[in-house]
Amino acid sequence: MATTVPLKDELDIVIPTIRNLDFLEMWRPFFQPYHLIIVQDGDPSKTIKVPDGFDYELYNRNDINKILGPRASCISFKDSACRCFGYMVSKKKYIYTIDDDCFVAKDPSGQDINALEQHIKNLLCPSTPYFFNTLYDPFRDGADFVRGYPFSLREGVSTAVSHGLWLNIPDYDAPTQLVKPLERNTRYVDMVLTIPKGTLFPMCGMNLAFDRELIGPAMYFGLMGDGQPIGRYDDMWAGWCCKVICDHLGLGIKTGLPYIYHSKASNPFVNLKKEYNGIFWQEEIIPFFQQLNLSKESTTVQKCYVEMAKQVNEKLGKVDPYFVKLADAMVTWIEAWDELNPPTKEAAKAPNAASK
Amino acid sequence: MATTVPLKDELDIVIPTIRNLDFLEMWRPFFQPYHLIIVQDGDPSKTIKVPDGFDYELYNRNDINKILGPRASCISFKDSACRCFGYMVSKKKYIYTIDDDCFVAKDPSGQDINALEQHIKNLLCPSTPYFFNTLYDPFRDGADFVRGYPFSLREGVSTAVSHGLWLNIPDYDAPTQLVKPLERNTRYVDMVLTIPKGTLFPMCGMNLAFDRELIGPAMYFGLMGDGQPIGRYDDMWAGWCCKVICDHLGLGIKTGLPYIYHSKASNPFVNLKKEYNGIFWQEEIIPFFQQLNLSKESTTVQKCYVEMAKQVNEKLGKVDPYFVKLADAMVTWIEAWDELNPPTKEAAKAPNAASK
Repeated sequence: MATTVPLKDELDIVIPTIRNLDFLEMWRPFFQPYHLIIVQDGDPSKTIKVPDGFDYELYNRNDINKILGPRASCISFKDSACRCFGYMVSKKKYIYTIDDDCFVAKDPSGQDINALEQHIKNLLCPSTPYFFNTLYDPFRDGADFVRGYPFSLREGVSTAVSHGLWLNIPDYDAPTQLVKPLERNTRYVDMVLTIPKGTLFPMCGMNLAFDRELIGPAMYFGLMGDGQPIGRYDDMWAGWCCKVICDHLGLGIKTGLPYIYHSKASNPFVNLKKEYNGIFWQEEIIPFFQQLNLSKESTTVQKCYVEMAKQVNEKLGKVDPYFVKLADAMVTWIEAWDELNPPTKEAAKAPNAASK
Repeated sequence: MATTVPLKDELDIVIPTIRNLDFLEMWRPFFQPYHLIIVQDGDPSKTIKVPDGFDYELYNRNDINKILGPRASCISFKDSACRCFGYMVSKKKYIYTIDDDCFVAKDPSGQDINALEQHIKNLLCPSTPYFFNTLYDPFRDGADFVRGYPFSLREGVSTAVSHGLWLNIPDYDAPTQLVKPLERNTRYVDMVLTIPKGTLFPMCGMNLAFDRELIGPAMYFGLMGDGQPIGRYDDMWAGWCCKVICDHLGLGIKTGLPYIYHSKASNPFVNLKKEYNGIFWQEEIIPFFQQLNLSKESTTVQKCYVEMAKQVNEKLGKVDPYFVKLADAMVTWIEAWDELNPPTKEAAKAPNAASK
């Protein structure tokens, strides 16, 4: 299926604080046509240098406080989780978000990979969450649905999220980093697949694209960093929430291509400090999301998310008081989203039918 | 994780009728150390030539009738579905089955692929059906579980089935063959993954390995060919039954590597005649298997399979009388299996706990 990269008017690139000056230079051929939204995660008095020629807007903590008022409490401080503020202020249909230690990767033929182009292909082609196709993405050139794939399911569903991967430094947790400090991901797996309905996955925010009209309000990166008992679970949390809501609303999530080159491992000792609560809590969080059922009345992402927040409060609140605070922040996030993105007549209708 | 190909004593290779004299010659370096079970699908008076140096046993229809008596009715005639008789008479732990139009494929570096070795690796490493790992098989060298993967799920479960793929001629149904006669699969995807719990897939019997101690009695290829209203759904049927039972018993199914080279497309007009009922029926069969629940009392593959046969009779019997006949044959198959494979004290215990 032939697809083209959309025009500038349809996609924003959201980047948390840029510490690495080479980062934007390296991506210039691919990113310069697009608008950048940079969300500064730390001290607002520090200045971020953006090279000439990029079209960007930059938000620091003062800006977030000014725009959201008391609702700014739902946006993390001193943590890259603050990037989700960029999703909220964007007015585009698609978002691509990437970390500043992620560089352009090369494919096995030595060519630079245009990650953005592949993400857009992924988002523009349907997903197939109801039955596994053994040749993976059936919409790719040279592939199709195999024998035994029900014809009624071949139309697929709209794709809400495209999860890209990382060559070089894999996205490991602190314990695995400590045990395997030298492990590098060198395998280029030439494949995109839909994560089946009912299956959760660990969504990494390093190299991630999504359709904000379809799933934006669920792409909340939670409360991390300054004053919070947990870090490095911002993207995971968003992934679990998004997957359950996509399953409910009949939307798809893909993973696989494109790769970026993840240049440096973060400090595993610092990571362990951020992660240790999450490592305990995820043992409760995963069964919670696996068993979570949304009601038929929840026909929009916002309604799903608010219903989910209520269940987080009731069920995960028993695990730790942090989740009561998080559930409140989830509701605040939706209020802030709706304030900045007032529903139009068209958007008020559910994009897809409620859960199958 | 280092694995070695098991000794001859642990694996049989089951092949339906060999029409192609080059087939065994091409596979000689890989197959000669193993015992072959050849199940002749058609006229028993025809002789199959097996080149010198192979250790094999051959069964034709007369042999099957003699060994199974009236229960031979459950084994298909004039169809490669008869191969499942070979699974039943084998006494080995592992089975590898392959079609006679499948040759040795080459990996991207030009090396011959030892399909058997990769299947055994797949079967000896655990599966991870309860949560998706974005770097795919976490037990492969250079890979692991990524950040956010619950530690309690990292032990995985025993792998019952390894489903390999095909370069060159893809495994398409007749309509897709007719529409895309020239399509070839040229993409080598360097990956193995566990098909998540609750997700069905189209299992192809061209290049398939399994642990017969774990799942053998569910690997029944149904009633196809001579006197039946359907063909080319033998492996699909087995795959759907196996997947539901593996999910129930806490066993895993993997797909991906290894590739074989599928040399020639079968005739799409002949295939359409065999498939057309299946193309209708699979629209009912898939929801049936997706909703099928096995009881806690079904703690062995045999018990699961008999319970499943009862539900096939009750629910799919309404779709077509063929399924009433098939349900009876499923029970006959289990009776025949148990007769040829009398349960030992050890085997009578369920290998895994019942459904999670």
